[in-house]
Amino acid sequence: MSEDSRQIPAERFATRLAACRAAVSEHGFGALLIGVGPDLRYLTGFVGEPMERLTLLVIPRQGPVSFVVPHLEASKAQATPLSAAGAATVVPFEETADAFTLVAGLLAEAGTAAGSTALPIGLSDRLWAMHVLGLQRAASGRRFGSAGPVMRDLRQVKDADEARLLRLAARAADRTVDAIAAGRLVGRTEAEVSREIRGRLIDEGHDMADFAIVGSGPNGASPHHDAGDRRIEAGEPVVLDLGGTLAGYLSDTTRTIWVAGEASIEPGPEFRRVYELVREAQSQATAAVRPGVPAERIDATARELIAAAGYGDLFTHRVGHGIGLEVHEDPYMIAGNTTPLRPGMAFSVEPGIYMPGRWGVRLENVVMCGANGAEVLNQSGLALRLVRG
Amino acid sequence: MSEDSRQIPAERFATRLAACRAAVSEHGFGALLIGVGPDLRYLTGFVGEPMERLTLLVIPRQGPVSFVVPHLEASKAQATPLSAAGAATVVPFEETADAFTLVAGLLAEAGTAAGSTALPIGLSDRLWAMHVLGLQRAASGRRFGSAGPVMRDLRQVKDADEARLLRLAARAADRTVDAIAAGRLVGRTEAEVSREIRGRLIDEGHDMADFAIVGSGPNGASPHHDAGDRRIEAGEPVVLDLGGTLAGYLSDTTRTIWVAGEASIEPGPEFRRVYELVREAQSQATAAVRPGVPAERIDATARELIAAAGYGDLFTHRVGHGIGLEVHEDPYMIAGNTTPLRPGMAFSVEPGIYMPGRWGVRLENVVMCGANGAEVLNQSGLALRLVRG
Repeated sequence: MSEDSRQIPAERFATRLAACRAAVSEHGFGALLIGVGPDLRYLTGFVGEPMERLTLLVIPRQGPVSFVVPHLEASKAQATPLSAAGAATVVPFEETADAFTLVAGLLAEAGTAAGSTALPIGLSDRLWAMHVLGLQRAASGRRFGSAGPVMRDLRQVKDADEARLLRLAARAADRTVDAIAAGRLVGRTEAEVSREIRGRLIDEGHDMADFAIVGSGPNGASPHHDAGDRRIEAGEPVVLDLGGTLAGYLSDTTRTIWVAGEASIEPGPEFRRVYELVREAQSQATAAVRPGVPAERIDATARELIAAAGYGDLFTHRVGHGIGLEVHEDPYMIAGNTTPLRPGMAFSVEPGIYMPGRWGVRLENVVMCGANGAEVLNQSGLALRLVRG
Repeated sequence: MSEDSRQIPAERFATRLAACRAAVSEHGFGALLIGVGPDLRYLTGFVGEPMERLTLLVIPRQGPVSFVVPHLEASKAQATPLSAAGAATVVPFEETADAFTLVAGLLAEAGTAAGSTALPIGLSDRLWAMHVLGLQRAASGRRFGSAGPVMRDLRQVKDADEARLLRLAARAADRTVDAIAAGRLVGRTEAEVSREIRGRLIDEGHDMADFAIVGSGPNGASPHHDAGDRRIEAGEPVVLDLGGTLAGYLSDTTRTIWVAGEASIEPGPEFRRVYELVREAQSQATAAVRPGVPAERIDATARELIAAAGYGDLFTHRVGHGIGLEVHEDPYMIAGNTTPLRPGMAFSVEPGIYMPGRWGVRLENVVMCGANGAEVLNQSGLALRLVRG
């Protein structure tokens, strides 16, 4: 695999499924049901969006793995690396058939064969309620639990293929940030800039533009403000938080820039102080990353610094989230998460301070835990940029 | 509202919530729980992606409507038209709080006040399994059912604002198709063309590019083939099926074009015959649309024509799906759906014939049922285009 390959070799999927099967038993499940989404993509290579038609990988404790799909997805399911290698059997159903009953039958068959009908069934985290309720009705004698912990254990440590794709995505996001900061902002609406960001995310190599938050002036004080009709003015900061999907893997980076405009309006001392505080918190939290350190320690490192400066109440969210096939996934860098970091874990480090009604500052990089510390995947600069345009 | 406004006036949301409250009682629910997604956007104007943090509109049979959100979404939730009008109370929870217990408490309180604790709770169709299981655990004494039928009744008939946005989205998709058909295709990979489509969907006014299927030659025979590394050749057809989201509303159109190339390689008689058959089926199915006609009749109209010509087995999917805030939603044009069409229902009409290993033909427009027949929202031509580039 070259450094810029977007492919994941077929052997990876066989390895992942084998690890998953072992975990089904370890966690005491009779079977896992994995719906369309990141868990399914991780295990099979199947790319798709969830929809009302049920698509489900049925992984029993023992016996054959079935890939239940609507008829019109059959050839696509058959072409996934996992099915192509014979590790899963595609079971198509017709457009007017009852897929829930079909799955209940497979579960009963596998359960009887393995003597595991008393064990619970694990459901993937993102399976839709309409499917959960349908399965609970069709297999009414079974208990259902969350497959989340099984899949989390597998997915939170990235393999070399995943690491490569996360790097590619991060660089594509960096180029997007750099292009926006080098362009015109004054007088444009947040929504216009957001649309430009979405276009550039794709131009730079993402397959999909997932989000493009543009929080100008007071809107930057709402961490998850999207982008609205407000026009960006000279003499205010703008929070840019953007990301897209590249070969399934997410980018996610935030930069807060200062729009000086043609009149070169400089930021005041308070903004500069807060910016440098967030930058230092981001830097120290990143420096705290190493194997064995509890995830909550990364959060605490940033939080203690910000609290000591008197801004603790204005840092209203966890410092980071895992990232991979999902933009938010395990491990979360949050108080209470004592999971020790392991090499290959990838997550954001993104402290922020939000001054209600005035402005906000957030800086975010994606990092990967390495044997000796953090590999920082985003490479655009963290020093405050004064933008003229 | 001008014809190109992307706004939905605040009064709409109050009207929709009132209709929803009435339906909660009619359907015998104690309360509805509406998670992030199209149902929530329809009722509140809240724009967002589902995530691990719970966001839930709690609509009890009687009493106050609560909008449970993570703390960092509070100002965004407060700014939605519904909350801003005072029709829902934002209930934020802290980053480390148990949101399921919070919701269970609200349900118990409202249920006790209304004497409705014995009634089931309706869950929105797209609520994630991790949230369904969490709610079932926290409110273990309650029964849970699907809020799908309630929301379907409300959402499947579009109001004037929704109709306007669907028209805008359809035209943006049409311009994208026209641009691709006017450009170069020979020698490019499907994935390259797909990326261009995604970029153009946004350039033409979508906020998001949702899908861009490019099925060249034999790949066109798989209805849901995405786009791969195959290079497009002269002398073969390409199925282009694309759509994006504009102010929340989806476009979805399919054209099958013939790549003649510089050597002007003409399609053979069989391809022309199948193309004209699909075109005629699309046209007749569209002509069958009028109030009172059962949805399945639209499917049957196309299917009977195609079957009579001997291609019935190769038309492997329903003829259409409703469209609005979701790319697939009610009403479905499929055998067994006897729902009578009503003015304002919007759906795709997309017959296809798939010749395994050779090629496929699909033609798709979004139409809206009007008082006297179908309004066709897509306006790009259906005649076979021979593309030189």
